[in-house]
Amino acid sequence: MKRFENREWRDSMRLRVDYNNMMQEFVGMRGIGAAMLAEQRPQYEAAALRMEEKRGEMKWRQLPFSQSEVVHQILETAAWVRRNCDAFVVLGIGGSALGPIAVQQALSHLRYNDLPAAKRSGPKLYVEDNIDPERMASLMDVIDPARTVFNVITKSGSTSETMSQLLWATDFLKNAVGDAWREHVIATTDAEKGNLIKIAKENDLRTFFVPDGVGGRFSELCPVGLLAAAVCGIDIEELLAGAAYMDALCSEQDALKNPAYILAALEVLAMKQGCNISVLMPYVDSLRFMSDWYAQLWAESLGKRYACSGREIYAGQTPVKALGVTDQHSQVQLYTEGPFDKVITFLGVDRYRVEVPIPHAYDHIPDVAFLSGHTFNELIKAEQAATEYAVCKSGHMSKTITLPEVNAFTIGELICLFELQTAFAGELLGLNAFDQPGVEEGKKATYALLGKPGFAAKKAELDARPARDMRYQV
Amino acid sequence: MKRFENREWRDSMRLRVDYNNMMQEFVGMRGIGAAMLAEQRPQYEAAALRMEEKRGEMKWRQLPFSQSEVVHQILETAAWVRRNCDAFVVLGIGGSALGPIAVQQALSHLRYNDLPAAKRSGPKLYVEDNIDPERMASLMDVIDPARTVFNVITKSGSTSETMSQLLWATDFLKNAVGDAWREHVIATTDAEKGNLIKIAKENDLRTFFVPDGVGGRFSELCPVGLLAAAVCGIDIEELLAGAAYMDALCSEQDALKNPAYILAALEVLAMKQGCNISVLMPYVDSLRFMSDWYAQLWAESLGKRYACSGREIYAGQTPVKALGVTDQHSQVQLYTEGPFDKVITFLGVDRYRVEVPIPHAYDHIPDVAFLSGHTFNELIKAEQAATEYAVCKSGHMSKTITLPEVNAFTIGELICLFELQTAFAGELLGLNAFDQPGVEEGKKATYALLGKPGFAAKKAELDARPARDMRYQV
Repeated sequence: MKRFENREWRDSMRLRVDYNNMMQEFVGMRGIGAAMLAEQRPQYEAAALRMEEKRGEMKWRQLPFSQSEVVHQILETAAWVRRNCDAFVVLGIGGSALGPIAVQQALSHLRYNDLPAAKRSGPKLYVEDNIDPERMASLMDVIDPARTVFNVITKSGSTSETMSQLLWATDFLKNAVGDAWREHVIATTDAEKGNLIKIAKENDLRTFFVPDGVGGRFSELCPVGLLAAAVCGIDIEELLAGAAYMDALCSEQDALKNPAYILAALEVLAMKQGCNISVLMPYVDSLRFMSDWYAQLWAESLGKRYACSGREIYAGQTPVKALGVTDQHSQVQLYTEGPFDKVITFLGVDRYRVEVPIPHAYDHIPDVAFLSGHTFNELIKAEQAATEYAVCKSGHMSKTITLPEVNAFTIGELICLFELQTAFAGELLGLNAFDQPGVEEGKKATYALLGKPGFAAKKAELDARPARDMRYQV
Repeated sequence: MKRFENREWRDSMRLRVDYNNMMQEFVGMRGIGAAMLAEQRPQYEAAALRMEEKRGEMKWRQLPFSQSEVVHQILETAAWVRRNCDAFVVLGIGGSALGPIAVQQALSHLRYNDLPAAKRSGPKLYVEDNIDPERMASLMDVIDPARTVFNVITKSGSTSETMSQLLWATDFLKNAVGDAWREHVIATTDAEKGNLIKIAKENDLRTFFVPDGVGGRFSELCPVGLLAAAVCGIDIEELLAGAAYMDALCSEQDALKNPAYILAALEVLAMKQGCNISVLMPYVDSLRFMSDWYAQLWAESLGKRYACSGREIYAGQTPVKALGVTDQHSQVQLYTEGPFDKVITFLGVDRYRVEVPIPHAYDHIPDVAFLSGHTFNELIKAEQAATEYAVCKSGHMSKTITLPEVNAFTIGELICLFELQTAFAGELLGLNAFDQPGVEEGKKATYALLGKPGFAAKKAELDARPARDMRYQV
């Protein structure tokens, strides 16, 4: 029996949200008043109802419950990769990269790729989410194609960056292993549509599918994220069980008792008070890339020019990635003394996975000696508490999410929590949290600049731009 | 003769600033009007004059000119480290970490630590700027203390994080190599004051000094940053020469012809129009950590509650780290459709250090085939141009800094440029850009929580906090 099948264990792993430091009673006049939350109750009830009505449409909500067969296939493929490979390279960008990076960093050894093979729980993992030529070239210096599998991930099969990388990888593999290159590529894409499924079928590639209705930034818990995690030895069943557990907690209709809904409600109230910045600041090194994943989820979902009603709203809150304690020495000066324009969400744990003492060495120097005898665990927790205190005392809003510990179950909870927070915030703001019309313009301009057939008009538009004014150049 | 001694070569490496897309003629009504810049001329002239008057006080401005002897010592020590070590570990936080990380990532192989030793230009580099116990423990799994040198960096010698790490490293080394531990620690600190210089003297450690008047975030071009760079095989004389070159360009008194001053002036005008967010978005993977370094410089320098006059201003612009093309699939939706609350600074290059072709492979699929025959260089440049276009078309302000290529000289220029931009912005805002009073509260609270002698009153203050309201917990 797996530990997550035990109800008591699951309840002991429940995430907690504390928003005392958002409230006027604690943070002062620039906080949120209890009356404001109460006034909004009808809006919250209506939005909660819509969330239930749309549950079927939000296909990503089904992922924790619908994938037992897929999980079985993923585990089989992962076992094959782990037996045969030294390196597993994800070719993908956006949601196809940020989820895999975040989960692996949270749940594998903190210096996974740096470990000798014997100490590592799987092959080295590379997630290639940029197309800088220097970076592409540098990858060739550290992997042996004959011992590498590439997982190319794009639902549409039309992502220029990822498809270019596939062209590059195909060529790299053909030069090294000839016709056997097909064994070294796994495609994760739409089951029917697009170029990648076509290429996969023509070449008989191993294939996984991105389910219908699951957009990039909501795709971590489908094969997009699960395969890389399983390859690294992460328990993906526990990850999904954690997400299922949080989904149940977040089915509560009273927004004030629903962790995702209250988090969204607080951010939206803060936005209306002028907080256009949302900082996520884990005091857990392994969660540093959860902030990158969250940054896409929050920015791309809520950054919208139009409401569903068609009204022009230019909505959105800009996510900022910070890290405790590191950014105390970089950003906290601004957070305590700067404008009242942000909400800080601290992420902490009850227990770190190891305890490391601070040894004695210079006991005759009191200003150093007071540290000895404590642990790094105590030090980082004291600094988190101290920063929460200092930020609150300065009148700036914050809230804290606490994981009992970092494991696959709690990471599953956290992913589900943020996804549902984002969806609920979309309902409160009256916008579509699931599209991204604003990225089309840049895509079309890229196509035009590269001479893709069918984009001559866009090319003409670009060519017609006014000349740059030399006065505005230095 | 070194290449940077040649005037023509230096001029060919001059950074360029283009701010057409900040201006109303290009970006529309939400941009900056030429008249606004003209109106501010008296302020700019006055601030430029103050910059000259304060040149002597800004000791960090002397670093490119005053260190020939120090550079010699650094090169000697670096040569010794490179002969004797497999790993060089920086123990430091804030400015002691962000500069070394940024410069090494810019100028070493992109996967430096991952390379086999024979291909690497120096020992592995680890910069430990967090105290998470899991991270401390994981370091022990990847380094051999007998083949490691620790560079502990803290000017004051009272940084709790760094001094705890020194206690840990001392113990780790003593257990492995006994009394020879002293050979494995290099201290970079104040020449006279603080605990670290005392410990260094008592134990006869190798030592480098942080010059008087050089604060953490302005310290990259002193031994704080130069030693790690030299250990990795980076040409630190060229780095300093680049900074000196930019310092001369930025001695121009006409702000509109001074690259640092015009960058600062534009940000300050944008702040007054409601842009409280400053995004730095390199389209160069190797420059991704320059954004972290810039984020500290900009946030900690300008995030101030009080003006020099004593007036309460709660100033500051929140820096955001983005990366092209990666964040096109994460943040650009928000940047084009979201609020008009940010300035985006793109960082690009004329030439990448390698050219990587996009090969032919699936020529029968037109939507993929149009990429083949191009290079990744063309693709990333097209995407940068397309994103600049899309952001501008959506009415959002941006500007672009272009490096002819990434090398030690241009990185030196970039560091000096941002430092002077920050100092000039401080003058325009009438605040002290060189202190950080807002971090004291958190430090004191940490001391109180750890029971440091002398902080009983602060402990009592913390204990007197009102109890958390259970209603605000989920």
